[in-house]
Amino acid sequence: MSSNAAGQVIRCKAAVAWEAGKPLVIEEVEVAPPQEGEVRLKILFTSLCHTDVYFWEAKGQTPLFPRIFGHEAGGIVESVGEGVTDLQPGDHVLPVFTGECQQCRHCKSEESNMCDLLRINTDRGVMIHDGQTRFSKDGKPIYHFVGTSTFSEYTVVHSGCVAKIDPQAPLDKVCVLSCGISTGLGATLNVAKPTKGSTVAIFGLGAVGLAAAEGARIAGASRIIGIDLNPSRFNDAKKFGVTEFVNPKDYDKPVQQVIAEMTDGGVDRSVECTGNVNAMISAFECVHDGWGVAVLVGVPNKDDAFKTHPMNLLNERTLKGTFFGNYKPKTDLPSVVGKYMNKVVLHHNNELELEKFITHQVPFSEINKAFEYMLKGEGLRCMITMGH
Amino acid sequence: MSSNAAGQVIRCKAAVAWEAGKPLVIEEVEVAPPQEGEVRLKILFTSLCHTDVYFWEAKGQTPLFPRIFGHEAGGIVESVGEGVTDLQPGDHVLPVFTGECQQCRHCKSEESNMCDLLRINTDRGVMIHDGQTRFSKDGKPIYHFVGTSTFSEYTVVHSGCVAKIDPQAPLDKVCVLSCGISTGLGATLNVAKPTKGSTVAIFGLGAVGLAAAEGARIAGASRIIGIDLNPSRFNDAKKFGVTEFVNPKDYDKPVQQVIAEMTDGGVDRSVECTGNVNAMISAFECVHDGWGVAVLVGVPNKDDAFKTHPMNLLNERTLKGTFFGNYKPKTDLPSVVGKYMNKVVLHHNNELELEKFITHQVPFSEINKAFEYMLKGEGLRCMITMGH
Repeated sequence: MSSNAAGQVIRCKAAVAWEAGKPLVIEEVEVAPPQEGEVRLKILFTSLCHTDVYFWEAKGQTPLFPRIFGHEAGGIVESVGEGVTDLQPGDHVLPVFTGECQQCRHCKSEESNMCDLLRINTDRGVMIHDGQTRFSKDGKPIYHFVGTSTFSEYTVVHSGCVAKIDPQAPLDKVCVLSCGISTGLGATLNVAKPTKGSTVAIFGLGAVGLAAAEGARIAGASRIIGIDLNPSRFNDAKKFGVTEFVNPKDYDKPVQQVIAEMTDGGVDRSVECTGNVNAMISAFECVHDGWGVAVLVGVPNKDDAFKTHPMNLLNERTLKGTFFGNYKPKTDLPSVVGKYMNKVVLHHNNELELEKFITHQVPFSEINKAFEYMLKGEGLRCMITMGH
Repeated sequence: MSSNAAGQVIRCKAAVAWEAGKPLVIEEVEVAPPQEGEVRLKILFTSLCHTDVYFWEAKGQTPLFPRIFGHEAGGIVESVGEGVTDLQPGDHVLPVFTGECQQCRHCKSEESNMCDLLRINTDRGVMIHDGQTRFSKDGKPIYHFVGTSTFSEYTVVHSGCVAKIDPQAPLDKVCVLSCGISTGLGATLNVAKPTKGSTVAIFGLGAVGLAAAEGARIAGASRIIGIDLNPSRFNDAKKFGVTEFVNPKDYDKPVQQVIAEMTDGGVDRSVECTGNVNAMISAFECVHDGWGVAVLVGVPNKDDAFKTHPMNLLNERTLKGTFFGNYKPKTDLPSVVGKYMNKVVLHHNNELELEKFITHQVPFSEINKAFEYMLKGEGLRCMITMGH
């Protein structure tokens, strides 16, 4: 379907989640035209992230169905709504689950990427502009997910949640920068900021943790210590620069003590990517006094409490959290894509390698396989090719 | 006594604490010559800090008596021990309770001031070089305190704990930079780093907290909110730039919530100077998400636990602690003295004002009055003039 559909409803295929935990069903749906401040995207590639699975399972949340999931994707602008001036049909873009209104205090602050207007909202299933959905089937609304809903050949997204990128960049690779990989990478490069030759501990060697390790590799860390309860992850982790592996189960003492002993008092930086509150505490307490910085990435449970002796702070350790790797989606993602293009085009060693994150591929018609891989903990990212 | 005493024992007056909590007694003591790596100082001015009182009271610690307290001071080098090349007789100096060996990983790190060798040690009553005291009376040793023991006309200090300063600087003013004032000032200027126009909350309006406020004033903060349980402190605090006062006792809700409501979501920076763990938690939770930085200065109790929901961190707040305001004593104190001299000589408004910290003065013979003022919570710093 071409952009001469601008202003018209588009009928296309989407993978609809009708019920919590039940396989998605490829349906023909209607996608309304973009309204004020919105853009309609043709999605070419999308990948599956844990967050999709978490809200699809809908355990312990208010379920919102039918819904179209998906938030890691690459696509092309099909048409733009009223008032959208920074994007036009044909632009190559990454939709992002969080946004940048460019007006609020957060967007105006150099330090924050937590836009007041477009910050992630997993409860909302409608567009901000009018509280309606742009998806329907036989006139019945289908809910959006985190403003992106990329498990559809076409989707409508707030323009503040769309990053325009280099049209030369292969969308089947940079697609993964929409969420998890940028989150881990930015946690290291933008927040932990290890210097060349430093030591870095990464807690959790899933896709986000490995992206954090990739950041440490790019930064030139001399030792990257991976911590995970699953020893089978170490072998793959080596590709992401991880030099040593610690399985907390192998020790009778707290893992922070193990790491301190390995590193003459602690690592220079740590990045926590599991969301387990005890791992957060270990990640903080394993950094060296005087200069250590611990960065929290993994999302905790609602009732968790982070607890430490304040002397651990007074001894000049720093504890910070990050959201989406502190990247402002529209402003910063083009340069992250650039880091990958430096690798592809210029063959720089200390640049971003994305291929190694993509361990599986399926056509859109087999999207449920991507869910199966993730539920089995197989691989890192499954690339889903639309239109097949 | 002049420097022709080099290599000889000096007999001079010192205020000796014979027992925990009992008034100091001015005694004639012997001060041995400085050994390798040490210097002997003639103290001209010294002031009293809470830490002296805390260890003099010796509640809940192993008592170490007889002892000569005192660690905020200004003096002149009388003689130097073997191997000391960066100091010579006649140099104007500030002795410091922590040091800079210039060899260890901390000293070599740009980020740390927590020297491995000379970091504060409140339990040690002897010199590092030979495990002996340099003070005695009638042949019986008198213990040192934090390597400085400035309540004596002469004292011996490790050369790594001596900052050489501008000889033009009035020692009866810059004396207070040896400890508390630098601690608060540096917490703001070196660690919290508020930008011009930002909002800053200061927890605890004692000398350290007011020095932190002074740092915020110098940095050009637009609002400086002082938090203290004692409302009488607000009036004096205005001199240090505090623009608003919050007494947690006046509210039925947590003070972090009060501050968030006053500031549209939280302050940009906070500095905690009480050591109370609940104040630490409030100081952290009152900073704005996205960019807020909380800095802990006050020393906690042994069994305290800092506790917060990890989402407060994930929302891009930063929590850090600092020791001696992150100043490296030898490297950085000369420039702090310079900030005061810019005020005195160049009349710059945004430079350090020290006079307002010095609220009392007593001759050395009346040193116990300084203890009385502090125990009553009267004033900020009492300047003790030696040789009277």
